[in-house]
Amino acid sequence: MDTFPSPTISSGPVWEYLRRLLEETSGITDGKVADYIPELAKADPEDFAIAMATVDGTVYSAGCDGRAFTIQSVSKPFLFAHAIETHGIEAVMRKVGVEPTGDPFNSIVLDNLNNRPFNPMVNAGAIAMAEMLAARTPDARQAELLEMFGKFAGRSLGIDETVYRSESETGHRNRAIAYMMLNSGMIDGPPEEILDIYFRQCSVRVTTRDLAVMASTLAAHGRNPVTGARVLAPDTVRDVLSVMATCGMYDYAGQWMFDVGLPAKSGVSGAIIAVLPGQLGIAVYSPRLDSVGNSIRGVEVCKRLARDFSLHAYVDRSDTRGVVRRRYRGDEVRSNRVRSHREFDLLSERGREIVVIEAQGPLFFGSAERLIRKTADFAQDARVAIVDFRRVAYVDKAATTLLRELVQDLTLRGCRVVFTDVKGNANLADFETALGDKLEAGQCELDTDIDRALETAEDTILADAGQSGPRERLALAELELFEGLGKEDLAALEGSISSYQFDSGETILRAGDDAQLIFIVARGSVSILVGSDTATGRRVASVGPGQSFGEMALLDGGKRSADVRADTPVLAYGIAVEELRRLFDASPQILTTIYANIIRSISSRLRNANDHLRALQ
Amino acid sequence: MDTFPSPTISSGPVWEYLRRLLEETSGITDGKVADYIPELAKADPEDFAIAMATVDGTVYSAGCDGRAFTIQSVSKPFLFAHAIETHGIEAVMRKVGVEPTGDPFNSIVLDNLNNRPFNPMVNAGAIAMAEMLAARTPDARQAELLEMFGKFAGRSLGIDETVYRSESETGHRNRAIAYMMLNSGMIDGPPEEILDIYFRQCSVRVTTRDLAVMASTLAAHGRNPVTGARVLAPDTVRDVLSVMATCGMYDYAGQWMFDVGLPAKSGVSGAIIAVLPGQLGIAVYSPRLDSVGNSIRGVEVCKRLARDFSLHAYVDRSDTRGVVRRRYRGDEVRSNRVRSHREFDLLSERGREIVVIEAQGPLFFGSAERLIRKTADFAQDARVAIVDFRRVAYVDKAATTLLRELVQDLTLRGCRVVFTDVKGNANLADFETALGDKLEAGQCELDTDIDRALETAEDTILADAGQSGPRERLALAELELFEGLGKEDLAALEGSISSYQFDSGETILRAGDDAQLIFIVARGSVSILVGSDTATGRRVASVGPGQSFGEMALLDGGKRSADVRADTPVLAYGIAVEELRRLFDASPQILTTIYANIIRSISSRLRNANDHLRALQ
Repeated sequence: MDTFPSPTISSGPVWEYLRRLLEETSGITDGKVADYIPELAKADPEDFAIAMATVDGTVYSAGCDGRAFTIQSVSKPFLFAHAIETHGIEAVMRKVGVEPTGDPFNSIVLDNLNNRPFNPMVNAGAIAMAEMLAARTPDARQAELLEMFGKFAGRSLGIDETVYRSESETGHRNRAIAYMMLNSGMIDGPPEEILDIYFRQCSVRVTTRDLAVMASTLAAHGRNPVTGARVLAPDTVRDVLSVMATCGMYDYAGQWMFDVGLPAKSGVSGAIIAVLPGQLGIAVYSPRLDSVGNSIRGVEVCKRLARDFSLHAYVDRSDTRGVVRRRYRGDEVRSNRVRSHREFDLLSERGREIVVIEAQGPLFFGSAERLIRKTADFAQDARVAIVDFRRVAYVDKAATTLLRELVQDLTLRGCRVVFTDVKGNANLADFETALGDKLEAGQCELDTDIDRALETAEDTILADAGQSGPRERLALAELELFEGLGKEDLAALEGSISSYQFDSGETILRAGDDAQLIFIVARGSVSILVGSDTATGRRVASVGPGQSFGEMALLDGGKRSADVRADTPVLAYGIAVEELRRLFDASPQILTTIYANIIRSISSRLRNANDHLRALQ
Repeated sequence: MDTFPSPTISSGPVWEYLRRLLEETSGITDGKVADYIPELAKADPEDFAIAMATVDGTVYSAGCDGRAFTIQSVSKPFLFAHAIETHGIEAVMRKVGVEPTGDPFNSIVLDNLNNRPFNPMVNAGAIAMAEMLAARTPDARQAELLEMFGKFAGRSLGIDETVYRSESETGHRNRAIAYMMLNSGMIDGPPEEILDIYFRQCSVRVTTRDLAVMASTLAAHGRNPVTGARVLAPDTVRDVLSVMATCGMYDYAGQWMFDVGLPAKSGVSGAIIAVLPGQLGIAVYSPRLDSVGNSIRGVEVCKRLARDFSLHAYVDRSDTRGVVRRRYRGDEVRSNRVRSHREFDLLSERGREIVVIEAQGPLFFGSAERLIRKTADFAQDARVAIVDFRRVAYVDKAATTLLRELVQDLTLRGCRVVFTDVKGNANLADFETALGDKLEAGQCELDTDIDRALETAEDTILADAGQSGPRERLALAELELFEGLGKEDLAALEGSISSYQFDSGETILRAGDDAQLIFIVARGSVSILVGSDTATGRRVASVGPGQSFGEMALLDGGKRSADVRADTPVLAYGIAVEELRRLFDASPQILTTIYANIIRSISSRLRNANDHLRALQ
């Protein structure tokens, strides 16, 4: 954890932009370095660094990004977050408000009405938060503090002892605040102990890269994008960002919201962090401050970034209109189960009773509202509604509520609801749990993927029409491969045929192997899989009784082009290509008939694949 | 425009929720109806309505949603917006600030530093905005006002003359404010004229449905979702929402941001609007007010909505991690151009020099940053990088900048960049324009779709390897359909073959027609199209010299299963199926050889389709 664990990018368009921005704003020399703590006054006023960390853990950094400085008030939102996580928001709100104040950050004034500091971003509020650390001894408190900051930064951090001592020796105004709070019962004291922790928290040494990663942890809703660790609950992040938005920039809140529009926090050492939820964390360091205590170059950099890259929080980036990626009916797209002609015709006729709605992106109120509305519309008169969740990023609480209502509505209308790709998807685990009672009551179902869900739905339609599909086809004359052959031809074939048994799950053919046999399924069902060696293996066809696979063996030098696996216990007939060729001279029509049957079968699969491709467009 | 033009939904989960929410909060009877204007005091304190309008124009409405009331201060953000659109933000900012004030809304205090009202949500600021109407006579101003509100509401609105007169007769405090502003030069006067417009703007009659649509116009970034008309520029919306966020709820800004987290505005008639950018507009009406002037039930309803549906603005809904939908190389997925064995092998070997990156969703800074980073990574050593934009919703300014930089970078590395699906997409018109000079300089290209782009890229790779593909194949022996036939067989066939010419664009075969001929392309190229009668027609194969199409005619009762269209002037050979069958008795091996060739060709297409399906997964 001691070295910076993430790749810092020092090239490419974004870095180039930051470098140029740094160059262009380094001419600004207004303002002055904070001097109310002697140690802070020693900062080099020319120091200047900008860093940006994305929610996927990429860090862009320009300027003197190796320079460590003390975190000062930028620590406050993190202590606030830590207090919420430790004690819950209600307990925290008894100690501190969330209302901005027109007074300076080091004001002694408390909120008369509630007798508590206005918010956790002013010193009084921060001192109240410092007392909320769980540990009870000075050493344990410091350890708790550093562990907490370390989780946000993704590396272990230390304290600048010189600044700490300087703060401690000269922080009399903060002493006054603490004693006033003790007087009004907002802290239990002893004040020196709490102040000690407060001075330490202000003296944690960080770089702009650290701060950018800390900010990006808020942007990523509590997950540190560099280490991958969950540091805060999303609800805590929302609370912290809310207070940063209104109270983070001292007396500059309105103009900041207008110019930059990002929740932010500044500190007297000259640091500013800003958070663009869902996208990135920004950190700037330049010690010269304006009259209210914000870094002058820092504010300018944030303004320009916000303008040049449209980073303002109120610029729309959600895209609810895309939530329904596509919708189609079971007569347009069929499962990969190979069907007989009769079944095929039946599905062409009644397949429209199956509707499929492909959802995509994150499901939150706005997108889920549209999804359930469009689904309910489209599923009018449907018997099965399949909601394809393969492309759903997550389902929030609001979306879960709405989807449960959808299930209820459709069930009442006699339409079964099936969700695909929910099982085994960690991002949808909460959704699955919330659906529990509906699943138990049989009001909805989960299926592994759209292909299986379609197959099951098709089976329902076929069964209703009295076409359940054969359990087995044992006679050669029933096999599609031999359709059109006369009795003598079949008799001639019989000798060349052997029967094979496979267990459920057994691999029957493997891509790349030499192809010498053609198989026909007599009982059970097999899947033809492409890319099955990886997790992304995809079923391109499912073959049942009466239908064949591995026909490419008939062509010279044929190799297996896909894996074939038994879905159930399988009884299959195998016919050696050699034998078949030998028959040719005596009865050429056997071969041409079989060839024609193969062409029909492959063509039908090709048409299916093309329909499917069209549907996926 | 007089009747409400949008379907108002009074059923379904969302409406049910609103109805329940209304029921549950109607027990709240705290607060009192505003009485500082006599007319307002007459409102029925029990009136209660909630409406919600989505960015796609659906309105949910519960309660007494037919009741009209006066808009009061909820008019202020719209006047502010109108002033920005009319005069530009700089001119507006000379008249009004954006800083929240601790003082009440009807405060006389101006910002000492800038000598202007603190913000456009206090009365002083609103009066300054009223003066910024473009019209110069009272009648013209009222017409301008009503036209503006009408655009937001999606129907024409009127003024409540009784309330207007009451406001005008008793609005002495506002007179004081106006005269103070005249005194300090913030308005040019005459005050009574400006106040007249201000009193009128406060007296516009609206329902909660109107207000919800107005709010949803802000949520939809300036486009009225019901009428589809663009009412504001997105930049103006951002500015208005920023001020609503910090100044919209009087002295309640911090707690509101914390509890609800939505830009909002309340008015003394008891109305509140709230905006969730990109998702929805909310309106509540209940006349009883709290001490700072906000509707008590209104605030409670917004709090609950925000909590129950996670509507807070700082809840993440963007999904930058999904921006790269998929990436693959030209050896994994090929164009639908049917290639010879040799070309196919060559592409399997060198196709990895083609990379395809499928982008999806809206492209803004966070998503575009990831897209260009992933593209640059993946295109290392590539000769052609195809960026598939079919699923891109829009490209904002920041994303455009980053993509231009990507083009620059890849060009320097000797990699050509091709964007698909940009041309003809109205949402990407700005992006296309911004790319103009790069297109002219040949640093990047646009192509209609991924299939054509892949084909062109493959041709480049093949040409480099000295395999440009044949211009023509005139001899029967060169045709793939006849591969493996002996000289005598070919001689026997010759008599059954005729030649056909087609113009570029001509339809050669039509799906559903009887199939009697097999075609072989001798010169030029044809496309096999599925669903070509609609705009979504999709090329499933492109067939060039030496290759055949329409082979299904060989099977009994064959119908054409797809359209075939000439891409260029085409010379083709046609062979009647009848003739071919007649040959069979004499030379059965001709038919089996041709069948085997057909099986090879269809299988190869099926494999291609399956690869493609897998890639689209």
